[in-house]
Amino acid sequence: MHRDRPAAGRTLLQQAAPITAGLRAAGWCAGLDAAADALDAWRPAVQLGGAVGNLAAFDGHGRTVLAALARRLDLAEPVLAWHTERGRVAELAGLLGRAGAAVGSVATDLVLLAQTEVGEVREDVPGRGGSSTLPHKRNPVAAVSARAAAVAAPGLVASVLTAASLHEHERAAGPWHAEWRPLSELLRTVGSGASWLADALGHLVVDPERVAAALDVTGGLLLAEQATTGLRARLGHAAAKDLVTDAAARAQDERRPFADVLTEALGDPDEVRALLDPSGAVGEATALVDDLLESRERKRP
Amino acid sequence: MHRDRPAAGRTLLQQAAPITAGLRAAGWCAGLDAAADALDAWRPAVQLGGAVGNLAAFDGHGRTVLAALARRLDLAEPVLAWHTERGRVAELAGLLGRAGAAVGSVATDLVLLAQTEVGEVREDVPGRGGSSTLPHKRNPVAAVSARAAAVAAPGLVASVLTAASLHEHERAAGPWHAEWRPLSELLRTVGSGASWLADALGHLVVDPERVAAALDVTGGLLLAEQATTGLRARLGHAAAKDLVTDAAARAQDERRPFADVLTEALGDPDEVRALLDPSGAVGEATALVDDLLESRERKRP
Amino acid sequence: MHRDRPAAGRTLLQQAAPITAGLRAAGWCAGLDAAADALDAWRPAVQLGGAVGNLAAFDGHGRTVLAALARRLDLAEPVLAWHTERGRVAELAGLLGRAGAAVGSVATDLVLLAQTEVGEVREDVPGRGGSSTLPHKRNPVAAVSARAAAVAAPGLVASVLTAASLHEHERAAGPWHAEWRPLSELLRTVGSGASWLADALGHLVVDPERVAAALDVTGGLLLAEQATTGLRARLGHAAAKDLVTDAAARAQDERRPFADVLTEALGDPDEVRALLDPSGAVGEATALVDDLLESRERKRP
Amino acid sequence: MHRDRPAAGRTLLQQAAPITAGLRAAGWCAGLDAAADALDAWRPAVQLGGAVGNLAAFDGHGRTVLAALARRLDLAEPVLAWHTERGRVAELAGLLGRAGAAVGSVATDLVLLAQTEVGEVREDVPGRGGSSTLPHKRNPVAAVSARAAAVAAPGLVASVLTAASLHEHERAAGPWHAEWRPLSELLRTVGSGASWLADALGHLVVDPERVAAALDVTGGLLLAEQATTGLRARLGHAAAKDLVTDAAARAQDERRPFADVLTEALGDPDEVRALLDPSGAVGEATALVDDLLESRERKRP
Repeated sequence: MHRDRPAAGRTLLQQAAPITAGLRAAGWCAGLDAAADALDAWRPAVQLGGAVGNLAAFDGHGRTVLAALARRLDLAEPVLAWHTERGRVAELAGLLGRAGAAVGSVATDLVLLAQTEVGEVREDVPGRGGSSTLPHKRNPVAAVSARAAAVAAPGLVASVLTAASLHEHERAAGPWHAEWRPLSELLRTVGSGASWLADALGHLVVDPERVAAALDVTGGLLLAEQATTGLRARLGHAAAKDLVTDAAARAQDERRPFADVLTEALGDPDEVRALLDPSGAVGEATALVDDLLESRERKRP
Repeated sequence: MHRDRPAAGRTLLQQAAPITAGLRAAGWCAGLDAAADALDAWRPAVQLGGAVGNLAAFDGHGRTVLAALARRLDLAEPVLAWHTERGRVAELAGLLGRAGAAVGSVATDLVLLAQTEVGEVREDVPGRGGSSTLPHKRNPVAAVSARAAAVAAPGLVASVLTAASLHEHERAAGPWHAEWRPLSELLRTVGSGASWLADALGHLVVDPERVAAALDVTGGLLLAEQATTGLRARLGHAAAKDLVTDAAARAQDERRPFADVLTEALGDPDEVRALLDPSGAVGEATALVDDLLESRERKRP
Repeated sequence: MHRDRPAAGRTLLQQAAPITAGLRAAGWCAGLDAAADALDAWRPAVQLGGAVGNLAAFDGHGRTVLAALARRLDLAEPVLAWHTERGRVAELAGLLGRAGAAVGSVATDLVLLAQTEVGEVREDVPGRGGSSTLPHKRNPVAAVSARAAAVAAPGLVASVLTAASLHEHERAAGPWHAEWRPLSELLRTVGSGASWLADALGHLVVDPERVAAALDVTGGLLLAEQATTGLRARLGHAAAKDLVTDAAARAQDERRPFADVLTEALGDPDEVRALLDPSGAVGEATALVDDLLESRERKRP
Repeated sequence: MHRDRPAAGRTLLQQAAPITAGLRAAGWCAGLDAAADALDAWRPAVQLGGAVGNLAAFDGHGRTVLAALARRLDLAEPVLAWHTERGRVAELAGLLGRAGAAVGSVATDLVLLAQTEVGEVREDVPGRGGSSTLPHKRNPVAAVSARAAAVAAPGLVASVLTAASLHEHERAAGPWHAEWRPLSELLRTVGSGASWLADALGHLVVDPERVAAALDVTGGLLLAEQATTGLRARLGHAAAKDLVTDAAARAQDERRPFADVLTEALGDPDEVRALLDPSGAVGEATALVDDLLESRERKRP
């Protein structure tokens, strides 16, 4: 429904050029899928070795027991005990950090798109997001919570990695014990963030009028690149660029719609309307969304 | 040469039970290999999308150009531009964090084994590690440097992950620019740490006398578990355990060699010698080292 | 000039209630001043102690030399050498982290206020912030750079603190060497961020029309709390609250200006105009700004 | 009792030169005191401001109420509300990070000094630190726990600082909510570490024989600097240094006590005994300990 809807693309929080609502969502999907796939591929290993990892207590059958135990628990079978080789734990922490980053980035977009002055999306959960003293508030509670959860993750990753880097000898004097709380807290915060983000996306409502209004807020300025391209054939590259740059500057300095200034310069309102049609400026957005959905289908049939 | 040499295994920086020098080194190898393999498997992706990732500047041929560019540069071809989807960057940071942890843990072992009071290993690089005012100093310079490099890594991972979690819209207003220095510094510190560790391991000399002396420093206390096991058949589990526990406590309280106290208790010096022979207590260390080398051979023929 | 200008106050990135432009700037000032004052109060200490901190090389005059050296270099005189007591270094890292946070928070506000859809401020530096392909772009380059610098700081603080927590004995085997790069990088990134932020604030232009427009974007919704308070005397608390809450919901659901809906409910446009006058809703903003400037004058005459 | 007892000073985990047991403990005390004093000086502030910090709900009496509230709660009175100015919170995080580092560094020393091969200290808590399978284990449980607690702190500091750097406008959309868990966890881990360290220090037993044995383990090598100094008057600086350096190298290469090699070179065993007397090599350790205790007395009478 919104898939091919032109929308304002923003760089450095300034409107830059049009995209589609679908391309925006595809970007979210790509990041979240990749993070989830990487976590899915992580596999814990069984741990058996005795006090110092030499399997001395098993009367020579330690390796056999280890293999049987791994099969029974459906865990990876490590060659050696990993009392102080915390690579798998460090790997998990890194993957959780990545997942937290994916969550945080999408949640940040939602919070920004829900701003009063933008309003392209909102979370539609009756009775949630209000305020007792500010009756008009409709806070994007779930996206805010997802974002909050993501903020805590990188420091916890650092704690787990620090512990991993300090393990001594056959069992560590502190770094081993130091792993548990940060890792638990990391699982909790990333899991909580993912859950809140699923909630936010599940209740997301796109406001087509506000999406369209955003494209119009500058009178078409974010189509300046397309206008230059459109005029290139007729005017030559340099003259086209100068004309558009000059019109863009005048529109901003004089606080007038870009379309009006451009019409003064070119004379023909129809030409200007065509030059500033956002649907022509979204490039290969539609095909890119198709590509993403197809690649997703292949991986997760 | 040192592969099957019995050595003191230590947990919580206390001697615990015997391992072999080979098992110790195999543990180092396992951690470093796994970290290196994971980094090797990471593959950077080509980046092409234009200002907002819609390929609008390519007249409909953007996806074709993208594919060709990826082939030409031998880079992965992403479905979408990753201006604000920093999963691959976050993944790299996590893998570098893991590699730094592997380096740090091995370097810590080297520094600890090189202590004046332990002396099981030293770095043999003529003219290095000395001190102008302390002529006797033979500092394990390379291991110390590797350790130092590893300490800085987790915080840098956190910085890269934080940046990744904050990317907004089609290009980020700060988080994008924030990525470069921490990522460069992370590559530098982990690379430097790995290089110093290779230096340390390349110049490592094992001192067989000190390795043996460590096993003897408590008069065989770290063989208490083996002694219990050895006496179990004759005395029964409970009596064997009580006898050994009592002897261990007396040896420590009276500062006498464990072997002497045990001989008093058991009467037969030959029996005690057999019970406290470290070569019988290293469990499946030899087989585990073989396993590791084989699995390594399979992966890196 | 803008000091008492009513402006939209925002919580959770939603318009909430009016403040003044002056109160907003006073908040920035308070955070930056406090962070700068704390850094100013930090004082480095002289370091003298010899290899192990016992001043053995000074023939019994070490403490006298230490005191003289501290005076000569105008540095604090520590009781003991701080080879492995890195409290001062950790303290500096913490203060830099706090300063980076102050910079980041203000820079984030600037970037958000400069959004195309908000436009309350911009950086006015001719020739900066443009884009070769997007001629209309006026990126808030300095604020973006300040924000980027702030993102890297917390991870570096963690690295310095980690190093500080690991120092052993009389001089550390790695943690000491690990301190220098993260601390240098931390000084660099916080200093760079502060410098960019000074640039951004120095070139900041407030757009009074957009500030006023923001207050109007919801037709007065962010004055709902004031409207409730204003109606309380006449209608009683519960009825006033119900009336306003109902009008706010209808305005949002029907996408109509809050003022219009409220006028329907109350009948008197003049009463509504008075209820929704933002200048009455800024509370003690003016006095708070005065307080801040006075307290600043006292500390920094 | 142990205050002036000569002990081995260690740099880079190698014996370097003598200190006293008292100087070592004084170093611990200095770091812990300074961290505790800094935390004691931190003062929380009252928070009052209403939704956007303008005190609009107080009918013009907000600042009076704020002052009264601060007095009543014995909290600092901030000039402005600190909804998004988290300097005090960031400062607290930095101070906790510093305290955690002080704890970690001392705990690391304890764990290292308690190593089987060093044994200068142990924790004397009957029934604690043992192992069911390793009856001889006397693990320094409290120091290990203190160390573990310290490992987690720097990452949590980073999380709190990251949150502080992201606060937007009048109340933050996520960073505010992100503060609570990492700050709570930071208080918990630093408090727990301090508590465990107090336990470890409270039950610490110094073993005078092992302290003396450590000084002897190299046959006096760590007195090489003192020997050089002692021979300077008779031989001249260059010759003294060459003689000592040469003897130190021979002692290490030939695994002989340094005292024996030096006696061969100098001829007079009494002279060698005097040159290698550690009590003459501890410099101003005694006076430094006095200084520290005096300065402590002044601050904490």
